Amino acid sequence: MAVINGYELSEREQSLNVINLPSLENLAKEILPKGGFEFIRGGSEDEWTLRENTIAFDRVQILPHVLSNISEPETKTSIFGLQLDTPLVMAPAAAQGIAHIRGEAATAEGMAATGSLMTQSTYSSKLIADAAAAGHGAPQFFQLYLSQDNDLNKFLLDKAKEAGSKAIVITTDLTAEGYREADIVNDFHFPLPMANLEDYQVGLGQSDAGVGHGKDVFDNEAHQIGVSDIKRIIDYTDLPVIIKGIQTPEDALLAISAGAQGIWVSNHGGRQLNGGPASFDVLKGIATAVNHQVPIIFDGGVRRGSRF
Amino acid sequence: MAVINGYELSEREQSLNVINLPSLENLAKEILPKGGFEFIRGGSEDEWTLRENTIAFDRVQILPHVLSNISEPETKTSIFGLQLDTPLVMAPAAAQGIAHIRGEAATAEGMAATGSLMTQSTYSSKLIADAAAAGHGAPQFFQLYLSQDNDLNKFLLDKAKEAGSKAIVITTDLTAEGYREADIVNDFHFPLPMANLEDYQVGLGQSDAGVGHGKDVFDNEAHQIGVSDIKRIIDYTDLPVIIKGIQTPEDALLAISAGAQGIWVSNHGGRQLNGGPASFDVLKGIATAVNHQVPIIFDGGVRRGSRF
Amino acid sequence: MAVINGYELSEREQSLNVINLPSLENLAKEILPKGGFEFIRGGSEDEWTLRENTIAFDRVQILPHVLSNISEPETKTSIFGLQLDTPLVMAPAAAQGIAHIRGEAATAEGMAATGSLMTQSTYSSKLIADAAAAGHGAPQFFQLYLSQDNDLNKFLLDKAKEAGSKAIVITTDLTAEGYREADIVNDFHFPLPMANLEDYQVGLGQSDAGVGHGKDVFDNEAHQIGVSDIKRIIDYTDLPVIIKGIQTPEDALLAISAGAQGIWVSNHGGRQLNGGPASFDVLKGIATAVNHQVPIIFDGGVRRGSRF
Amino acid sequence: MAVINGYELSEREQSLNVINLPSLENLAKEILPKGGFEFIRGGSEDEWTLRENTIAFDRVQILPHVLSNISEPETKTSIFGLQLDTPLVMAPAAAQGIAHIRGEAATAEGMAATGSLMTQSTYSSKLIADAAAAGHGAPQFFQLYLSQDNDLNKFLLDKAKEAGSKAIVITTDLTAEGYREADIVNDFHFPLPMANLEDYQVGLGQSDAGVGHGKDVFDNEAHQIGVSDIKRIIDYTDLPVIIKGIQTPEDALLAISAGAQGIWVSNHGGRQLNGGPASFDVLKGIATAVNHQVPIIFDGGVRRGSRF
Repeated sequence: MAVINGYELSEREQSLNVINLPSLENLAKEILPKGGFEFIRGGSEDEWTLRENTIAFDRVQILPHVLSNISEPETKTSIFGLQLDTPLVMAPAAAQGIAHIRGEAATAEGMAATGSLMTQSTYSSKLIADAAAAGHGAPQFFQLYLSQDNDLNKFLLDKAKEAGSKAIVITTDLTAEGYREADIVNDFHFPLPMANLEDYQVGLGQSDAGVGHGKDVFDNEAHQIGVSDIKRIIDYTDLPVIIKGIQTPEDALLAISAGAQGIWVSNHGGRQLNGGPASFDVLKGIATAVNHQVPIIFDGGVRRGSRF
Repeated sequence: MAVINGYELSEREQSLNVINLPSLENLAKEILPKGGFEFIRGGSEDEWTLRENTIAFDRVQILPHVLSNISEPETKTSIFGLQLDTPLVMAPAAAQGIAHIRGEAATAEGMAATGSLMTQSTYSSKLIADAAAAGHGAPQFFQLYLSQDNDLNKFLLDKAKEAGSKAIVITTDLTAEGYREADIVNDFHFPLPMANLEDYQVGLGQSDAGVGHGKDVFDNEAHQIGVSDIKRIIDYTDLPVIIKGIQTPEDALLAISAGAQGIWVSNHGGRQLNGGPASFDVLKGIATAVNHQVPIIFDGGVRRGSRF
Repeated sequence: MAVINGYELSEREQSLNVINLPSLENLAKEILPKGGFEFIRGGSEDEWTLRENTIAFDRVQILPHVLSNISEPETKTSIFGLQLDTPLVMAPAAAQGIAHIRGEAATAEGMAATGSLMTQSTYSSKLIADAAAAGHGAPQFFQLYLSQDNDLNKFLLDKAKEAGSKAIVITTDLTAEGYREADIVNDFHFPLPMANLEDYQVGLGQSDAGVGHGKDVFDNEAHQIGVSDIKRIIDYTDLPVIIKGIQTPEDALLAISAGAQGIWVSNHGGRQLNGGPASFDVLKGIATAVNHQVPIIFDGGVRRGSRF
Repeated sequence: MAVINGYELSEREQSLNVINLPSLENLAKEILPKGGFEFIRGGSEDEWTLRENTIAFDRVQILPHVLSNISEPETKTSIFGLQLDTPLVMAPAAAQGIAHIRGEAATAEGMAATGSLMTQSTYSSKLIADAAAAGHGAPQFFQLYLSQDNDLNKFLLDKAKEAGSKAIVITTDLTAEGYREADIVNDFHFPLPMANLEDYQVGLGQSDAGVGHGKDVFDNEAHQIGVSDIKRIIDYTDLPVIIKGIQTPEDALLAISAGAQGIWVSNHGGRQLNGGPASFDVLKGIATAVNHQVPIIFDGGVRRGSRF
């Protein structure tokens, strides 16, 4: 096991006996360092929104139609012309090296194997190209945190394009950093550099000392996002642009009017802003407003997809 | 105590001190092997629907009319011309040999003694005829899981008819096997053969090795059920046919239009499909749609009938 | 401490440090024999209605009017011309000798001291006249369980009249005995005779062996109550008659049409019939129907009256 | 550590590791004498209203608008022409010497440092002038419990005016003392004199023995408050008068019609009257009725303001 900046980085490879997400979480809790586990698991403040995200699914049920005469229910779908075996687009998750030394490369392998679509994070522990290669040709999206340094934005968009990303996902809900209490108690800091940021700075001839280790990362982000920022990215890239972090019909329509080709309904899993409603509770209103103009991707509180 | 396929099969006979279902469940938990107990008790996935089935009864209350001038409230009822002392039709429960070596024979005795009606399961641990004989003439129904092998369907319908079954109950809600986590953790497999399936295969001259021990049983079931399947059974049998597993008004009306003479509102006790509403919560809408055309049988979450 | 029929009968006299009902209940639990304590505390079946009775008060709040310019809020009230310092009419409670050897006599003293009104139970551990005398002239009601033996009804009504009772309270909600699980588990039987029933039987020259010890008491009750039963009592007595156990507007109007001069909204504290709504939840509908024709007394779930 | 009247008065000065209010409460619980801690923390009766005050915030969510193009959200506000860096007016809290020997002086320093506004309590452990001086010029309000002794009212209003108070807050919701069970169990009495009352009595040449130690304090309060009482104070002072303890639209309009220049929606934190609704639940109705005629201050159940 490697130790980097005092953090025990897992290199273990073993088969797991996992029957559902809680059992996976329990295993992870045993293995991962406390700070890393709670960064992955935890939300902001008292985690009200994080909990609501899951509880919201108890407020709606799907009625079984037993005489439907369907033998093989179909889970295939497509987005932007991409064929998916399962209707899953994985939300971007930063710094996956915290969980395992193979980080996003292993995730890319897994997502490809299930016929699902991975979204790489700006704050990946692996370079865009490396995680893309690990996906063996499976389609991927790239998620962009807007930086105040527009050259960095362009650098990342170019790298994503080169690596074959099929769409750009702009996260809009982190202009203010969340108040994550567990991270404060654990004094948790990212033990690993953000690979893509390091790549950019090395290219600029900047020292990589302490590059991309958390607080300074957030400081360089855009703390203000409006329609013009979205248009600027859309003008630069020829990939479809999806706006992530939408929680209101108004924002969804603003994003579409700015040229967005997809809406991603998300409250960042309750990980950053606390006190807003469950993501699932706002989905219907947004879907009504969007009215099939563009595809909608959703995250927040999903813990199960019934086995068939 | 007999041990079959590693499973301790209870042969004990003793009087029990049971004051309600939870106290019975507690006693069963002490006596039964863990795998068997949890198969009987448990539901699928996180058991949300199983819990909702019972909780739903807290959302409706019956108002007592104290000046009704009724001295002896009547619990007698009838269905298909059959007189019942109590208005109970027991839902089919598979593999009762797990609980006791006498299995469905003992259940048949008990149901007859209370003036209630037993429904035998396709997956009974006893032959239809044997459990029928144990009922000493009390009326019984036979529940049919549609097989992909229509000869098996006919064989079972013939056996039920011979044994005096008063109606055929077709279960329609198990075209996809439930994700039962406790059974996975316990690595539970039916220790006993399904008597009726064994009977069929022996008759065909097939080896009975491993016959009817769980997964293979499900594999042979119909994974797709429509109106035409119901009509086929109705055409074959001259017994009344009840469609079990109905959770929507639409399916109830489809079943009736196909010739069903009874509707059985059930979500399989939350044992197979999880995430749907409580069975009691959908009953009213179905009853309104059925509008007294055929009798409705209900199961799901019933834990009490007040003593009088 | 006296022991009667195996039951330790408390004779202790001590001052108590009680700040609310839960603290009183905790003290009682320490002191009383388990069977007696649980008879007093417990409800029927799984005690759903018992709990709902108290929870229902959380569903309604009283808005404080801070500029009301009232200095001394008035709690005095009157019923049937009787002046009460506090607006409390104590619900009849059977067999108070279980709690203390002084039984209803001590209760009568306490109710008189607080300016409240005691209702004696048919199944009192003390004679009507004795508990009345202990009240030192404070007004009392007498509660009547209708017996199948109308001579007993008349005997009790005569005794109540002689003892100065101001009204007759007919309990209508116990035509079927409740399924009280704790009493079954504890094998609890009334250790003391019902004084009024014993008085009647001794007067008849009957042996008092086993008189009024529980099951046999209930067996002699009316298991059927209608408007004609109420009229019969009203015809016999010249005291106002209050009908207790009303849970529906229909029954309230039936009782008034039969000549009742008061309605007592109660579900017997959830002690006998379980599964009905909270008593407080049905109060408003009944009050609307009664529309000030007669006074309404309410019990069920009251645990607090704010101190002023 | 000083001990006064048997109470250990904290003099400690140390930096605290506090990440939220629960962690602060836990630290306080370790350090403070039980009686003092529970006086500060606790509510009246079973604390239903105290709990509801916080739960009510779970019933309303604020929708995040992620494309708002706002970089620096503004928390500055003003009231009565006073500029505040944070939109916080601290509710008056009595007897802060219980928590620390520096009492209200330390609080005044802290409130000034955060750009918030302190409201001094009539029942302060420090003189109005001393706590005002500790605020180093930051604006403060003075809260007045109306006394039956109008000379005391005038004395306090004069002192507040001299000390530079910017408004008078009349508390109207304590005409009846709350039933605070923890204080009864702990036999808690204020260990320190109420500084302002002592000041008044010393000026009158009265002995200060036992001055202002709890029960006697309440006995001298007005037990009846109406519009005329408010008018009397407004006539006497030239400071703006805010009416605190409003829980209904009717009382808000009454107060404004009497000349109040501010409404303070509060139920005293559930500390005195229990059983009313959450303060937050009545805010909207009051705000609608007030309709921007005067500013509204709110307290009750606030536990978080998201960090930006």
